[in-house]
Amino acid sequence: MANDHEHNHEHKQRKNVINRLSIIEGHIKGVKQMAIEGRDCPEILLQIAAIRKALDNTAKLILTDHMENCLVNAVHEGNEDKVLSDIKKALDNFIR
Amino acid sequence: MANDHEHNHEHKQRKNVINRLSIIEGHIKGVKQMAIEGRDCPEILLQIAAIRKALDNTAKLILTDHMENCLVNAVHEGNEDKVLSDIKKALDNFIR
Repeated sequence: MANDHEHNHEHKQRKNVINRLSIIEGHIKGVKQMAIEGRDCPEILLQIAAIRKALDNTAKLILTDHMENCLVNAVHEGNEDKVLSDIKKALDNFIR
Repeated sequence: MANDHEHNHEHKQRKNVINRLSIIEGHIKGVKQMAIEGRDCPEILLQIAAIRKALDNTAKLILTDHMENCLVNAVHEGNEDKVLSDIKKALDNFIR
């Protein structure tokens, strides 16, 4: 994963995304602590499900931000094919 | 979430679960760093999908461990109703 993959356009939700990932990181740390303390399995499973939901919402935010900025720019410049194919590949991992 | 929810039976996969959660924590940290560096959205989305898969596999491990130990014990003691209903509630969050 090289640096030439860096973006050259703006992402309005970047700070929001970083903030959500920080919260998820803290949440994982909390669940790990629950496992260390030997807490009830169903309780731990509920927290893991909540983290999964938060991850999905973060992915949705990244995707819509990407479409609203990167894809719209690409269409204006007439080179949307690569951007569209990348988005489709990413979607395949979330919607099966 | 009180201490009286602590388990009083063995979980064979406890260390494995804690280890997986540690790896997921590191993975999230890495993805946050990618977002900070402004890496490609589809690349970030791929990593988030991988984390979701790792979370699901950890949940599956907790659930099978719970069934093989907690549920089997409960059946031997004739009080499986509460354990079964907790497992069903937890499953509802993963399978819709």
